[in-house]
Amino acid sequence: MRNDVPDPVPLAQALIRCRSVTPADDGAMAVLEAALAPLGFACHRLRFGEIENLFAIRGEGGPHLMFAGHTDVVPPGTTGWTTDPFGGEVRDGLLFGRGATDMKGGVAAWISAVTDVLARRPDLPGTLSLLITGDEEGPAVDGTVKVLDWLRDQQKIPDCCVVGEPTSKAVLGDTIKVGRRGSLNATLTVHGTQGHSAYPQRADNPIHRLVRVLAALTGTPLDQGTEFFEPTTLQVTSFDVGNPATNVIPPSATARLNIRFNDRHTEASLTAHLRAALEAEAPRHELAVSCSGEAFLTQPGPFVAALQAAVLAETGQAAKLDTGGGTSDARFIARFCPVAELGAVGATMHKADESTPVAELRALARLYARVIEDVLA
Amino acid sequence: MRNDVPDPVPLAQALIRCRSVTPADDGAMAVLEAALAPLGFACHRLRFGEIENLFAIRGEGGPHLMFAGHTDVVPPGTTGWTTDPFGGEVRDGLLFGRGATDMKGGVAAWISAVTDVLARRPDLPGTLSLLITGDEEGPAVDGTVKVLDWLRDQQKIPDCCVVGEPTSKAVLGDTIKVGRRGSLNATLTVHGTQGHSAYPQRADNPIHRLVRVLAALTGTPLDQGTEFFEPTTLQVTSFDVGNPATNVIPPSATARLNIRFNDRHTEASLTAHLRAALEAEAPRHELAVSCSGEAFLTQPGPFVAALQAAVLAETGQAAKLDTGGGTSDARFIARFCPVAELGAVGATMHKADESTPVAELRALARLYARVIEDVLA
Repeated sequence: MRNDVPDPVPLAQALIRCRSVTPADDGAMAVLEAALAPLGFACHRLRFGEIENLFAIRGEGGPHLMFAGHTDVVPPGTTGWTTDPFGGEVRDGLLFGRGATDMKGGVAAWISAVTDVLARRPDLPGTLSLLITGDEEGPAVDGTVKVLDWLRDQQKIPDCCVVGEPTSKAVLGDTIKVGRRGSLNATLTVHGTQGHSAYPQRADNPIHRLVRVLAALTGTPLDQGTEFFEPTTLQVTSFDVGNPATNVIPPSATARLNIRFNDRHTEASLTAHLRAALEAEAPRHELAVSCSGEAFLTQPGPFVAALQAAVLAETGQAAKLDTGGGTSDARFIARFCPVAELGAVGATMHKADESTPVAELRALARLYARVIEDVLA
Repeated sequence: MRNDVPDPVPLAQALIRCRSVTPADDGAMAVLEAALAPLGFACHRLRFGEIENLFAIRGEGGPHLMFAGHTDVVPPGTTGWTTDPFGGEVRDGLLFGRGATDMKGGVAAWISAVTDVLARRPDLPGTLSLLITGDEEGPAVDGTVKVLDWLRDQQKIPDCCVVGEPTSKAVLGDTIKVGRRGSLNATLTVHGTQGHSAYPQRADNPIHRLVRVLAALTGTPLDQGTEFFEPTTLQVTSFDVGNPATNVIPPSATARLNIRFNDRHTEASLTAHLRAALEAEAPRHELAVSCSGEAFLTQPGPFVAALQAAVLAETGQAAKLDTGGGTSDARFIARFCPVAELGAVGATMHKADESTPVAELRALARLYARVIEDVLA
């Protein structure tokens, strides 16, 4: 194991000391620019709305490996901290602070890795870049999405991308995320005809229709899962009528549901599925769909294999390919190139006393250095 | 057609002028006692709680024909009247007033009929009685039910009973009610296990369970109807969860339903049916049932045939046997003896300007007189 990779802790501390709770930047991008410019990176500050973003690039031609990350953090909360959330204290071998794992630590580790590789391989072929946003924990509207549009216009779309999210579960390198499920919310409203409970033949009960729609939707699994994804799930989260009168058939009924879906489905295909279930049982209906992210998967191939090989060599872990958990900006990048998420152990992310072991952060820098060499060399 | 039956209008007016909105009596029972005592009726004033009731009986041995009615009325309301609701005005051939049809008019017509029959047939065999309550339009707790208990204790249960509700639809005598559907309300609560929508395998969605319960309950008719009853109906009237969070599976879900049932079912059998549907799909549940009246039917037989014959002879109508509409005190009497409801045209009951044609009220008195003679002679 090499011990000559520059220590990522000072840079991580400098980032933690910026109070960059979304959408604030508080100097974080300037810290990164100061670290990257001396290494030969051309730094593009891209401001969209109130969000600071940075795209830094060095080298020419392929392969082009991009690192994607964010400097914004979730609020520290008001209780539970034994240290200043923005202090960057190192105590008992742990680096404390909001963003220590998610993901100022990861950004610092990648820059240490780049520093190391360029020092040893000044002739490194290909292109290295970093897409750093300040809008990952927020609405994700003026961040990665808009920088990617800019990259497309500049013809700088990379060949592959590592996202530095804290994907490891128990031990550094045990998990690489190669996709995420999509998530879709829908509101189904069924209209009937109000009437007296005693004379249902003169009314049209919308609850009965909606019950049949939901029985059909929940009665048959949407799929059986895939090699990398669990089965798609559909959960009805509410059903509301609010009719206090026992002798009245109400005029309408509403249900809401959430679908977590794998790459067999899209927002469009699921909307069509819901629409068909409504059409079959409830001709008079309204359907409102809101999709917070499509499912995506980076198929196994040379890029993912290179990541797994680097993890095995550097940590001894046979990294499991995983698609669980919530969403990340990887869902946007997946539209353009193979993308995988590989980072620190995420146990304390978003919690009080967020921290990362200094030894793990250094190991992550070594791992990233091997990834860069393996992918570019 | 005979024209010598005493005119029921003056007695009806005397009753209308009592402001006997449930539970008030305002002298109505005294008016009846004053009319019945001279005819040889023993009058028993039976007060239960705040309710005045009257049981009047004349004669000995069988057959014992009882007339059941009420002197209480629903409130007149504040608008829509063109005359005093408690004035008993006769205008353009109509007797106006709250209770003119439902059912002070019917009570007066029966007493005119009794007066006529006893004048012509002083040797009339059998027993005549009247059960008049002041709690038919109210909770129906301290009225007919308690008088019937008293009759049972006194061994004065009749052989058959006419209820003077305004059952006629378009023309006097077109409809005799020989039964009513029962009505039952139920609240079904299903418990599950709360959890995150993204991880349904760690939760237990109570909405899905309740949807399956209701799909089963509404998917198969409870029966196909009978000769005198329409099919039983089950209507879900509300379904409520009230969960605002799209990423949370709620801990419980509640639905309410109303069943209008014919004589193939009882409160007990329907409760068992609901319980079985819940057991099949939702082991953890609560079921609350409230039955406002069992279904009942007076099977066709000599009593109903005698009523139909009297109607045909007096009005020319082939009376249809019907079981529609809401509830009446007949449901209590049906536990003890054959009971049928026969009375005026009910078009204006419970409405402003409630009224009955004077000619129809006199025709009703003649019809009742024939019923008394046919049943007792």
